[in-house]
Amino acid sequence: ALHQAVERALVSGQLAGQHWLVSAGPTREAIDPVRYVSNHSSGKMGYAIAAALRDAGAQVTLVSGPTTLDCPDGIERVAVNSALEMLAACQAVNPDGFIACAAVADFRPAMAAEHKLKKGQGDLNDVHWVENPDIVAAVAGAKRRPRWVIGFAAETENAIDNARAKRIRKGLDAILANTVGDNQAFGTDDNHLHWIDAHGDTDLGHAPKRVLAEALVRRIIDLAKE
Amino acid sequence: ALHQAVERALVSGQLAGQHWLVSAGPTREAIDPVRYVSNHSSGKMGYAIAAALRDAGAQVTLVSGPTTLDCPDGIERVAVNSALEMLAACQAVNPDGFIACAAVADFRPAMAAEHKLKKGQGDLNDVHWVENPDIVAAVAGAKRRPRWVIGFAAETENAIDNARAKRIRKGLDAILANTVGDNQAFGTDDNHLHWIDAHGDTDLGHAPKRVLAEALVRRIIDLAKE
Repeated sequence: ALHQAVERALVSGQLAGQHWLVSAGPTREAIDPVRYVSNHSSGKMGYAIAAALRDAGAQVTLVSGPTTLDCPDGIERVAVNSALEMLAACQAVNPDGFIACAAVADFRPAMAAEHKLKKGQGDLNDVHWVENPDIVAAVAGAKRRPRWVIGFAAETENAIDNARAKRIRKGLDAILANTVGDNQAFGTDDNHLHWIDAHGDTDLGHAPKRVLAEALVRRIIDLAKE
Repeated sequence: ALHQAVERALVSGQLAGQHWLVSAGPTREAIDPVRYVSNHSSGKMGYAIAAALRDAGAQVTLVSGPTTLDCPDGIERVAVNSALEMLAACQAVNPDGFIACAAVADFRPAMAAEHKLKKGQGDLNDVHWVENPDIVAAVAGAKRRPRWVIGFAAETENAIDNARAKRIRKGLDAILANTVGDNQAFGTDDNHLHWIDAHGDTDLGHAPKRVLAEALVRRIIDLAKE
């Protein structure tokens, strides 16, 4: 507890004057007015990061897919459903830093979803799926890029190597590697994260998401000083 | 309020000694350990029916897909995810009556969902979808059939005519016709139901789901007296 109190005192106010954007939760891709594709992301990691950034003094905007979580105090939440809505909401903010924690659906139905269900249109084998944009790569590659762009990599094999490559390919300042296969991270209160930046890797350990969020913010404070 | 108190007094204890099974909520069909197809059913209608049956004196088992609702007091809840799990859970009960209120996914991925995500397997266009069993028709057609089997029909066009045909085709004692397109019923607190049985139709009106559930139970009490 003393250790934690000291840690918090060290980060307190360190991000004052900075505006951070965090994306969190799953996206839902509508097949029709009733059905959708989604994933098991609970949003807990992203919400914990948003709260930890706020505790470090930052102004925080949280773009969140559908979750059952309450918005932390002092944070502006923008609620979205689909990946395209999440992209638009993220692009509408002009922050100093962006942490892309959301589990964005890779695919969405190509057809417009506004139509009502009609007989004979219900067969999912008839749905044509198109790839969603890569939100963190789009933000990192934008002309008006946030100064810091940080992504997440959910890998089941060779997590560190794959995340390293993903960081460079997407133009990110840092990436967090975790493992989600078999629900190891989704929906749980714990997670295991590795921070990877241009200088190398740091194992942030296996811990409650709230604790990992604080460790992540300390890395961000260091990054912001470079 | 007096009207409602009288209504409740009339149904009180009328279903004592009977065991009713209610299915509620959506199903989730796993594509892989992370992604799934689901629908916007909140489970509110089915949970309200379960509570109204309990209030009429019935023993109630509630087979529920994933919802955020608390289980009503005095009701046994069996939590399931997929349509196949819901079918098995419903078939494991041997009730006097069954009300199939769940919004069961029509399709599920044909491939086993236990495998981890692998590179190149993420394209949803490669998923082959197979039809799920029709749970209420399976229960109504079983050798050991509950005495009363009641279904729901979510129709966007010709709701009454389509529901009438569906009742006969599936071998149901009664069916409730409602309208769900454009989120008219899913997730909301209100609904509009028509009760259809062998004798004809009754418009139960547009009302809060709790009130409709009580009206439905009064129809069931009449049905059970035949």
